[in-house]
Amino acid sequence: MNQALVLLKERLAMMTDLNLTSSILNWDQTTMMPDGGSDSRGRQMATLAKLSHSLLVSEETGELIRQITPWAQTQPQENMDAAFVHEAARLRNLEVNVPSSLNSEMTEHYSRMYTAWTIARPNDDFAALKPLLVKSVELSKKFSDCFKNMDHPMDALIQYADFGVTVKSAKQLFSELRSQLVPLVKRVTSANQIDSSCLQGDFDETAQLEFCKTVARQLGYDFNRGRLDLSAHPFMTRLSGNDVRITTRAIRTDLTDCLFSVIHEVGHALYEFGINPVLDGNILAGGVSSGVHESQSRLWENHVGRGKPFWDYFYPILQKNFPHFEKFSQSHFIRAINKVDPGFIRVDADELTYNLHVMIRFDLECQLLEGTLSVRDLPDAWNARYKSDLGISVPNMKNGCLQDVHWFGGRLGGAFQGYTIGNILSAQLYDTAHHILPNMEQDFVIGDFSKLKAWLNTNIHQWGASISPDRLIKLSTHQDLSIHPYMTYLSEKYSSLYNL
Amino acid sequence: MNQALVLLKERLAMMTDLNLTSSILNWDQTTMMPDGGSDSRGRQMATLAKLSHSLLVSEETGELIRQITPWAQTQPQENMDAAFVHEAARLRNLEVNVPSSLNSEMTEHYSRMYTAWTIARPNDDFAALKPLLVKSVELSKKFSDCFKNMDHPMDALIQYADFGVTVKSAKQLFSELRSQLVPLVKRVTSANQIDSSCLQGDFDETAQLEFCKTVARQLGYDFNRGRLDLSAHPFMTRLSGNDVRITTRAIRTDLTDCLFSVIHEVGHALYEFGINPVLDGNILAGGVSSGVHESQSRLWENHVGRGKPFWDYFYPILQKNFPHFEKFSQSHFIRAINKVDPGFIRVDADELTYNLHVMIRFDLECQLLEGTLSVRDLPDAWNARYKSDLGISVPNMKNGCLQDVHWFGGRLGGAFQGYTIGNILSAQLYDTAHHILPNMEQDFVIGDFSKLKAWLNTNIHQWGASISPDRLIKLSTHQDLSIHPYMTYLSEKYSSLYNL
Repeated sequence: MNQALVLLKERLAMMTDLNLTSSILNWDQTTMMPDGGSDSRGRQMATLAKLSHSLLVSEETGELIRQITPWAQTQPQENMDAAFVHEAARLRNLEVNVPSSLNSEMTEHYSRMYTAWTIARPNDDFAALKPLLVKSVELSKKFSDCFKNMDHPMDALIQYADFGVTVKSAKQLFSELRSQLVPLVKRVTSANQIDSSCLQGDFDETAQLEFCKTVARQLGYDFNRGRLDLSAHPFMTRLSGNDVRITTRAIRTDLTDCLFSVIHEVGHALYEFGINPVLDGNILAGGVSSGVHESQSRLWENHVGRGKPFWDYFYPILQKNFPHFEKFSQSHFIRAINKVDPGFIRVDADELTYNLHVMIRFDLECQLLEGTLSVRDLPDAWNARYKSDLGISVPNMKNGCLQDVHWFGGRLGGAFQGYTIGNILSAQLYDTAHHILPNMEQDFVIGDFSKLKAWLNTNIHQWGASISPDRLIKLSTHQDLSIHPYMTYLSEKYSSLYNL
Repeated sequence: MNQALVLLKERLAMMTDLNLTSSILNWDQTTMMPDGGSDSRGRQMATLAKLSHSLLVSEETGELIRQITPWAQTQPQENMDAAFVHEAARLRNLEVNVPSSLNSEMTEHYSRMYTAWTIARPNDDFAALKPLLVKSVELSKKFSDCFKNMDHPMDALIQYADFGVTVKSAKQLFSELRSQLVPLVKRVTSANQIDSSCLQGDFDETAQLEFCKTVARQLGYDFNRGRLDLSAHPFMTRLSGNDVRITTRAIRTDLTDCLFSVIHEVGHALYEFGINPVLDGNILAGGVSSGVHESQSRLWENHVGRGKPFWDYFYPILQKNFPHFEKFSQSHFIRAINKVDPGFIRVDADELTYNLHVMIRFDLECQLLEGTLSVRDLPDAWNARYKSDLGISVPNMKNGCLQDVHWFGGRLGGAFQGYTIGNILSAQLYDTAHHILPNMEQDFVIGDFSKLKAWLNTNIHQWGASISPDRLIKLSTHQDLSIHPYMTYLSEKYSSLYNL
């Protein structure tokens, strides 16, 4: 028994090393690599993916899992080795269920589609993408068919990012949220609008990065175990438990884009830094789901970074670094960074409307996979929902249903739910932490965020992927995932900001 | 037959991808990685090395090579596929001959020894390293014993870096060189010394890098296919045929360290850039030997970068970038950068004395492996040679026989000969190119180095490792490797500089 566990750990440690190596190659590609390197980099990453996949699906790995599973099933939930075995079985199951011919067909299709999208989107050319989208829907259905006992075709896709979530459970959560969110957005947008012009200026990019590094360091990001670089799209990447890097971008006219991207990525990074070091190099050493990961980034970005206590400490520093802000009061600035402004683009959305964008995509994906919506009717369905949920008329496809890379560079379905689950959970976690640490925001005022970080370390981070998302939420907040803390937070915050 | 070739290429392309991936990890480690990443990085690199090794030594690879070799043997030398098969067989042979238990023992020993060296060297503590060196000699002998039909125990080690070179051939070449070099060094050092104090100043590091980038670009280094970064020790690394990166370091008080490091690494990089793109991702896509690689770096560093035509173009630019040099004439500067100054440290040595350092190490390695020198007597033998060859008394061990990482971080033996072979070959190649392109130096004066680069592309670079070093030298210079062009170059250059 022990021997099988040791061997299984060895094999999957090699697989983990290959996956982390791919992450290094990807980080390099997006931050450092000269243009010339792209072709070979693609080939190198394909080789690593192939070897990693072979290690996981091999008969040897399957046999080791079969040998050790009866033992793992008798262990208490807290046993990390048992959790490792269960996770190994789950991951292998995801891979062996899908024939390699389908995998190749998908890879080839998504690569072609991504190239087509980069050309068609600027030209607003839905017609060019339509046959490719039809094929994507077909492939997602075929993919889904590889998994038995799924209630909904999208359930098979969701399990990759958010294990334990189903279309049914997400729909219930989301419809409840939407029913309260749409009226709140309407009330806010009919109120007097906030003037956010104070955010516009001319901000040296290097100075922006320096300020963001100060903020990151103060929140607990350890530059001896990470670094901050520029890339086209901000991201966080774990290269090991002691090498977790973040990136951002800097827009000269508005430093908040850079700043909130950094705080967001710091939230992701603190999660990875906080995972128990005994798991390093193991398949359990990583965030447990897309939703839980996003709860960490959004908690720091919105609950901390857009709040008054945070700015009580940082606004004088911001003003010192950027004299532009000397002529604006702190309260004026805080109102500006929390302005609600329903728009067409998800990634630019404010905190309040963001989830409406996500839920539109989630619902449309479901309908496409169910067959209750045809690709042909997608633009109309999209535009109708933007009208009903956000009260705006989508002017064109590129700012409409062609905007997200998710549908044009990978599997269609199952990639969006985590964004909204993360927002909901961020409030639930912040609420719990605040209840247990009633004075934590007083510490923020003096630049000390360590209590909140320590609470998250203990209750979320340390577990890595050793506890399922559902159980982790229950253990840390003593309740199931619920929209109530989130809606309470949003109502109170925006009622006050907009004097509703 | 064709099928076996295709399969062999596929397998070794995967191995090459793993090796290039290791290079990316190594580049990242030395330029970008935060301190925290080192432990996991070591483990990740070990995993990649293990998988690469398995692909090469596997029975499948052996069987494919056996199937295809009879065909390859009937092909003309120019056939790239046949060259690929021969190189695959040679590389596999190197690996399968060595039992994995010995490989592990060596890896473990060198890792321990390197750590011990970093502590013992600053303390001048030869005693602490002596037993470890004894073990290194033993391991090198054991390693050598794995190979049959070798005339000298070091031949087995040399073939890894400089295939085709033997102790016998190198000794013959080196003794001839030494017999002419030692008297020349004596004549130069008894002449009036050059005043190089003009090189001392205060040079902003960023400005140094900018100037070096200008030089690199002008020499033909393509920044769309590479980048220049800082690292503790300058190096070049090929990550693909279109991603060849170089590093340097910058010393505030003397910009020539940074500058000549960059020109040196550019020489290595131009070699890699120039390899025929059809070889990319193949085991033949790389420099053919340590000696030929070093010939490229030294050709650009010394024959071009320390010459008058180069500075006719660059000295005004240097003066504009660093007004410090306005008060010194170009000829004064050129004399300073070519000053001969026999010292203790190889890596700081001038062009003339550098080879004496190398040959001392080569001869002592040979004697250690032959058993004609014991580790106990190494310091005395070292010091005696520094007295006889360079005319200086070594003051301590740390600037003596403990100085080079080569003996304390890897296999003892076979790593030094390439440095001197490279110097010898650089002159032979430059001479040939100059003969064919008599006006090339007139182009240097106007900043055009393209003719020389094109000649090297055609005659050296494009072939990668598809032609053996010996044959490559013969094809490009129409003679075997010879010290005459090199000694003529050195005699003329230093006789003129020192008015001998």
